[in-house]
Amino acid sequence: MHSFQTLAASFEERLSKYPPFPEEPNTLYEPCQYLLQLGGKRVRPVLCLMANELFTEISEDAWHAALGIELFHNFTLIHDDIMDKAPLRRGNPTIHARNGLTAGILCGDVTCIYAYESMANITTALPQVLHLFNRTAIEVCEGQQLDMDYETRSDVTLEEYIRMITLKTSVLLACSLKIGALVSGGLGDNANKLYAFGKNLGLAFQLQDDYLDAFGDTTKLGKQNGGDILANKKTFLLIKALENADAGQRKGIEELLVADGPGKVQEMLALFTATGADTACRDAVTAYSKLAFECLEDVAIPSKRKEPLAELAHYLLMRDR
Amino acid sequence: MHSFQTLAASFEERLSKYPPFPEEPNTLYEPCQYLLQLGGKRVRPVLCLMANELFTEISEDAWHAALGIELFHNFTLIHDDIMDKAPLRRGNPTIHARNGLTAGILCGDVTCIYAYESMANITTALPQVLHLFNRTAIEVCEGQQLDMDYETRSDVTLEEYIRMITLKTSVLLACSLKIGALVSGGLGDNANKLYAFGKNLGLAFQLQDDYLDAFGDTTKLGKQNGGDILANKKTFLLIKALENADAGQRKGIEELLVADGPGKVQEMLALFTATGADTACRDAVTAYSKLAFECLEDVAIPSKRKEPLAELAHYLLMRDR
Repeated sequence: MHSFQTLAASFEERLSKYPPFPEEPNTLYEPCQYLLQLGGKRVRPVLCLMANELFTEISEDAWHAALGIELFHNFTLIHDDIMDKAPLRRGNPTIHARNGLTAGILCGDVTCIYAYESMANITTALPQVLHLFNRTAIEVCEGQQLDMDYETRSDVTLEEYIRMITLKTSVLLACSLKIGALVSGGLGDNANKLYAFGKNLGLAFQLQDDYLDAFGDTTKLGKQNGGDILANKKTFLLIKALENADAGQRKGIEELLVADGPGKVQEMLALFTATGADTACRDAVTAYSKLAFECLEDVAIPSKRKEPLAELAHYLLMRDR
Repeated sequence: MHSFQTLAASFEERLSKYPPFPEEPNTLYEPCQYLLQLGGKRVRPVLCLMANELFTEISEDAWHAALGIELFHNFTLIHDDIMDKAPLRRGNPTIHARNGLTAGILCGDVTCIYAYESMANITTALPQVLHLFNRTAIEVCEGQQLDMDYETRSDVTLEEYIRMITLKTSVLLACSLKIGALVSGGLGDNANKLYAFGKNLGLAFQLQDDYLDAFGDTTKLGKQNGGDILANKKTFLLIKALENADAGQRKGIEELLVADGPGKVQEMLALFTATGADTACRDAVTAYSKLAFECLEDVAIPSKRKEPLAELAHYLLMRDR
């Protein structure tokens, strides 16, 4: 069994030894390669490899799937950054900021196709893998669309928000795990439990992200709290605060949403606390984490083999920044 | 054996009976459906069905492939229209013009994924089909990139231009035919001949497009000649004219490229003729058409069965507008 660090390092090594993109046309592939090498935690491919290693030695199929998943994730980042007008990704210029809109669109497109090409190399359970991958890819697009739609709506419910982050974030983590199981020939029930583990883990992670953006330890965060508040982003905290607020608190929140002053973050944080939104968010993180670990326990594999996955989940959920 | 008209009508009927997109989220799928229903000749899916019918009765696999190919083609149209800043497609507003840039990007993305989902339903020769489809999709992206790159270059050679239109246009026609053969269990050599038929047919068609834009019968065209000339587009005619021009003619062409006057089109057409670029273009159309029909003749199938494909090729190449 391999740890997260070991698998992430092996994945990086493969990426640099076998770069997925050719050299020419350079105007197309240089930005793709640039973004892929910016790094990131490589959580999705490693989840796929770990799920695979629950059942067998890590197979070539699992490596193909891991690469396909990471390329797909990159594709979504490239296009999401255009839609979000984001100038930076991991502290570096985004492709559209660096190479223009056309490059952003086309590099995203071709990265997506390379994801599919990596997937097409899988020899075990290829149709099942493809249908799951496609369904997930579709859900990720739907999640992004809902996220865009919600920007202009003021009546988004908590249920809608959870559905949106499930689609936009969680299903790809879930899919990564399940594909790792499928290409090992892993049987249905275990594969489905791993899927549920990933989905709940993703939700816990995303809600924790919402919480830390507002209440994280600023010294560890290395940046000011409240980015979401300044951007008027509809997070769990804001939606829950509006849900719980009495008339006065609601008025306060609504005034802050159109305000721009220096006290905006602090006043909003105070209202999140006063309405109990902060506690509700922490409780939700705890609840989804618990669900995730229960699903992992239900996988019919000796606990010893599940340790790397459990450790990775702890690492993702125990962070305070 | 079925004619082009019959197969195109059957394809349309299937599209409306089994719309590939779900209803929700409507903001995502309504524009996708809108563009798919704008029509077009459906040449690519019909080529796939016809190639399939060379060998067997048209199979469900061929229908899945035909739909996948048409969806993929739609995806490229949606994103190309953004990159080309095109306000209209088939006389109707493009998605990005109608629904915004975000919708344009995301509808293109999800249409591409639905293309892959349709392909994943294929049961015969799935890995071979996917690798060919992916290679083709990559080539189409590369062709689009070269097209963008060439916009800002003044030294594009005829060879480079032919390579660009091969990638951007021809390989998808070729791929459509070959996949139709592959899913019938069609053997390598016939499938490859069909691929070559499609590639040459595509080149003949594109070069004829270049010619007709300049010299087409305006009464049949229903629009003024010279759209490419007004846009300073690097077509076969312009590149060949520059190649053949003497010093005076070259100067004339270069001056017209930066000119904007009312006589621009007529003067450029005169230079195309004086340099023999018009004849060279017609000759190239004839040469690629001949190559295409030779490849079709080489397919080891009774000629009778090949008639619908030959008729479709004639229909595409004999148009004068």
